Amino acid sequence: MRKLLEEFGLREGINEVIGITLGEWINTAPIGVVVRDKIFVRLYENHTKEFLKKSGKLYVNVVNDPIIFVKASFEDLSEEYFESLDPPILKSALSWLEFDAKLEGSIAYLEFVRGGVVKREIRAVNRGFNAIIEALVNATRYVYFKREEFKRKALEYQELVEKCGGEKEREAFELMLRYLE
Amino acid sequence: MRKLLEEFGLREGINEVIGITLGEWINTAPIGVVVRDKIFVRLYENHTKEFLKKSGKLYVNVVNDPIIFVKASFEDLSEEYFESLDPPILKSALSWLEFDAKLEGSIAYLEFVRGGVVKREIRAVNRGFNAIIEALVNATRYVYFKREEFKRKALEYQELVEKCGGEKEREAFELMLRYLE
Repeated sequence: MRKLLEEFGLREGINEVIGITLGEWINTAPIGVVVRDKIFVRLYENHTKEFLKKSGKLYVNVVNDPIIFVKASFEDLSEEYFESLDPPILKSALSWLEFDAKLEGSIAYLEFVRGGVVKREIRAVNRGFNAIIEALVNATRYVYFKREEFKRKALEYQELVEKCGGEKEREAFELMLRYLE
Repeated sequence: MRKLLEEFGLREGINEVIGITLGEWINTAPIGVVVRDKIFVRLYENHTKEFLKKSGKLYVNVVNDPIIFVKASFEDLSEEYFESLDPPILKSALSWLEFDAKLEGSIAYLEFVRGGVVKREIRAVNRGFNAIIEALVNATRYVYFKREEFKRKALEYQELVEKCGGEKEREAFELMLRYLE
């Protein structure tokens, strides 16, 4: 099972991916898929949890586009972002996975059903990209808890994004700032 | 040129990779290859700079193995880590590139000569891995400047590595701790 998940980009630890659940609409949100002895995800976000409970399904897309991470943190990605809707695959996806999901409290235990590779590419470590991810962790906490300290922490990553990132990272950070206003 | 560099994993921004220079021995060190209007790298580390000046060459390996990043931050990787020595390719390399390098002060301007893809794999974002990179930035500053604040900052990433990382990330962090002692 580990080898199979690795083929699609998920490894031991917490995998930051885009979670997709289907209900009255297509719900998208960044989630952390934990791969340890079990595979599970902790859910706070209401629609992801609600749709997952009803459908018993969680789709996951592995992406490395910082703009997709930002957009998905604050709103649902509309159909135009998708290359396929069944299974749901984003245009920028590297791979997709389908899981059967069983909710117990705030944890959804996942069982792998199927997956597919969209594209494999080599990408050197970029601290500017990584800084976007950390900024988003704080930005979404700010939106949820409305505490200024999280906003301040999110903004602290701007310097690293501008120094180390590429055009996409700078654009993603600007977009995040607009959502925070 | 941009498209060609992308094929080997280097994109606009600062690419954190393993730099390899050949002299009396094989010198390895993490370096940040800047891809903007020009391609260049800022050099502080003595042997990289010295070997590059003599040879006029910089080899680059794109890797995503946290243990390689840690080892290369504190010592030269011995021959057993290499799959090939001419051109130098690490066993864990995703790709390699050869540049002609022209040193001007502390900056080496790079001109792409050739490169190769070793393996393409999909990897979801892992904040534990990213935390290792940030810890190493501080750890190497600590070794260079001998200021306790850098060591303290490096250690602050332990929590994130343990929470989000896999076995490799935890092992890499432990290794870094041993080098810092």
